[in-house]
Amino acid sequence: MALIVQKYGGSSVGSVDKIKRIAEKVKRYRDNGDEVVVVVSAMGGETDRLQGLAEELDGRPVAREMDVLLSTGEQVTIALLAMALRHLGAEAQSFTGWQVPIVSDDAHAKARIQRIEPDNLRSALDAGNVAVVAGFQGITESGEISTLGRGGSDTTAVALAAALGADECQIYTDVDGVYTTDPRVVPNARRLEQITFEEMLEMASLGSKVLQIRAVEFAGKYGVPLRVLSTFDDGPGTLITLEDQVEEPIISGIAFTKDEAQLTVLGVPDRPGIAYSLLGPIGEHNIEVDMILQNVSGDSSSDYTLTDFTFTVHSRDFDAAKELLEKSAKELGAREVSGQSGITKVSLVGVGMRSHANVAARMFKALSDENINIRMISTTEIKISIVIETKYLELAVRALHDEFELDEEPQRVDSGLTPTADQD
Amino acid sequence: MALIVQKYGGSSVGSVDKIKRIAEKVKRYRDNGDEVVVVVSAMGGETDRLQGLAEELDGRPVAREMDVLLSTGEQVTIALLAMALRHLGAEAQSFTGWQVPIVSDDAHAKARIQRIEPDNLRSALDAGNVAVVAGFQGITESGEISTLGRGGSDTTAVALAAALGADECQIYTDVDGVYTTDPRVVPNARRLEQITFEEMLEMASLGSKVLQIRAVEFAGKYGVPLRVLSTFDDGPGTLITLEDQVEEPIISGIAFTKDEAQLTVLGVPDRPGIAYSLLGPIGEHNIEVDMILQNVSGDSSSDYTLTDFTFTVHSRDFDAAKELLEKSAKELGAREVSGQSGITKVSLVGVGMRSHANVAARMFKALSDENINIRMISTTEIKISIVIETKYLELAVRALHDEFELDEEPQRVDSGLTPTADQD
Repeated sequence: MALIVQKYGGSSVGSVDKIKRIAEKVKRYRDNGDEVVVVVSAMGGETDRLQGLAEELDGRPVAREMDVLLSTGEQVTIALLAMALRHLGAEAQSFTGWQVPIVSDDAHAKARIQRIEPDNLRSALDAGNVAVVAGFQGITESGEISTLGRGGSDTTAVALAAALGADECQIYTDVDGVYTTDPRVVPNARRLEQITFEEMLEMASLGSKVLQIRAVEFAGKYGVPLRVLSTFDDGPGTLITLEDQVEEPIISGIAFTKDEAQLTVLGVPDRPGIAYSLLGPIGEHNIEVDMILQNVSGDSSSDYTLTDFTFTVHSRDFDAAKELLEKSAKELGAREVSGQSGITKVSLVGVGMRSHANVAARMFKALSDENINIRMISTTEIKISIVIETKYLELAVRALHDEFELDEEPQRVDSGLTPTADQD
Repeated sequence: MALIVQKYGGSSVGSVDKIKRIAEKVKRYRDNGDEVVVVVSAMGGETDRLQGLAEELDGRPVAREMDVLLSTGEQVTIALLAMALRHLGAEAQSFTGWQVPIVSDDAHAKARIQRIEPDNLRSALDAGNVAVVAGFQGITESGEISTLGRGGSDTTAVALAAALGADECQIYTDVDGVYTTDPRVVPNARRLEQITFEEMLEMASLGSKVLQIRAVEFAGKYGVPLRVLSTFDDGPGTLITLEDQVEEPIISGIAFTKDEAQLTVLGVPDRPGIAYSLLGPIGEHNIEVDMILQNVSGDSSSDYTLTDFTFTVHSRDFDAAKELLEKSAKELGAREVSGQSGITKVSLVGVGMRSHANVAARMFKALSDENINIRMISTTEIKISIVIETKYLELAVRALHDEFELDEEPQRVDSGLTPTADQD
């Protein structure tokens, strides 16, 4: 018997029929003797419908009332799923955020969970109930309804698992796990049995399609074993876990982000505060910056040292960012601003590279063998990112997937927490 | 400056445009310097939609989860109305049932309000807000979401008005007040400026189209001045108030109920308990009984006194009630069961009849002049009800409306609480 927290997103609960299928899945765990807490999102489309109503009334609706409005979406789902479970003979009790309670700070629309009082849920479980909890919402200390922002349901599930000391937190999605890379680019991309929290975070560009980054951070912080698996197919999915529990492969996967643009300021006088001077205006305009690199310039024709400063943004923000940057660069007395749109970042991720010195060399050689020019390089302890022209994306990812033999299965690890579906 | 509680039902908040119009109406009261608490129902159709989803999952959904589900309907409306008010520049704060809190017993789906803690609302009003409260819902002592049953929003409004010591509770509907009788029957039926709580209760068959009876009882008990008025037309409506505040007319109005059926047991041995023996099985089959009359029989041919026992039910229940009654009558040794469907009850209602002796005589003469045969008569202190064949309905109501000159305006009373709409 295990205590399992499961989370089903909006597309998994998008209709009455889908809710019935989830009830059947949850029932199998109960019949297996497990205690189950289920976290659900609003039915697919419901949040958009409610937002549409609000926007008809007020183009800039106040966040407090948006939270009152949007939190009804999950409340509908918890009631319906509890009914569906009871209809199958599984006792169930629904919980809104305030009924748990899930106490958050008072940043409406983007609240963060402060603490969870698990006693009410524990009582419901002890009485033999499946506890069905509304994701994405909480209550502030002063009794206001809050929401954690879109996608916050993953965080709710992880936080509940931590508060209850659950054996596993299962995030059900429309994919059956985390892959070595995007299977649309590399057909023999392989589903990972396990991956570490750190790797999952570094693989954000793959991972964000599957899991909210905040939920992964939270799970890592509290050591909650997290499993990503498919709602409507059976299978073990991918277990995201602490490093020392993993059979370490050198490389876990290859992430990439298309549609990036690079901006470089050449010959900036190297004074304290230049990074802020250049990036401050960019941030104020809500332009997200990805990679940041700073090289010392070889230019010694002037009295002080000059440096080159490079960063990447999304392609759509290229023009706006360039304009802002040219203004800042002029004020700083920089020599020149250059940039290029249509570039792609490719990242090799793996905790194993810490103890394997030649990973970078192997990576650069594989790319060189394909005549792919590397424009930028940036590394962390467990990731090597390069920037290339987008036209080389597929070629680069396939070459790296082959080089590190990611299609080959490492030793299998199984927690035994995923029961086999009835096949009748 | 007055403190006013307003209630708008589902058809008044059925669309974003209607919510905007209500916000404008509420804003006029704020601009007039009044403090306003607004109680709203779910948007028209929403409760049916949610019930439909529940029934797809479980034909007999558990009441606790139905309350979790249905209470979202009003929660959506309070958020939207608060947004609409803020958009017009009126500060507003929404309150769910549990946020007020409105504490109820734990009879899910038909809960009764136990108490209201007004401090949170009072604070919101003191801060200059319109308080927008979800009708029809509460929270039990153990923290469960409850609903007061359909139509319970009227009761919410009256209970809030009582708890806050409001100057007036305004119930907005699709009619512009309470009429002397149904205007479809008597074209010159007149809107009443005032009516007492007792009269309103006795005019249930008219009043129930306008107000929930429980809300009227509640308002009477706590002395809350209640006003029925139209959502989308301007006008003073009808004030329902305590007897001693009313300029007493002899007769306030004429109520009627079509589709009744009469059942009579003739020659029942007059022993204690016969009423229960005859009506018990009827009640157990959920058949509602309206008028009940018992006459002492003139029959003295046997050792004990015999009596006749008559009651009325809805036409649709006639056959079932007759079958049950024949069985009970046989067991009691009664002589005969007779009955007739297709009859109508017409009631003359007015607190003034207490001090006017000849009201009944005038009523019977007016009907006699039209050759209308009276089948049954029943009276209370402020009501005289007769039963006639349905074909005489219109004739009887018009004759009585004329006899008591109900189309003529009594002296006007105005509380001054209804501001005139801007006409621009």
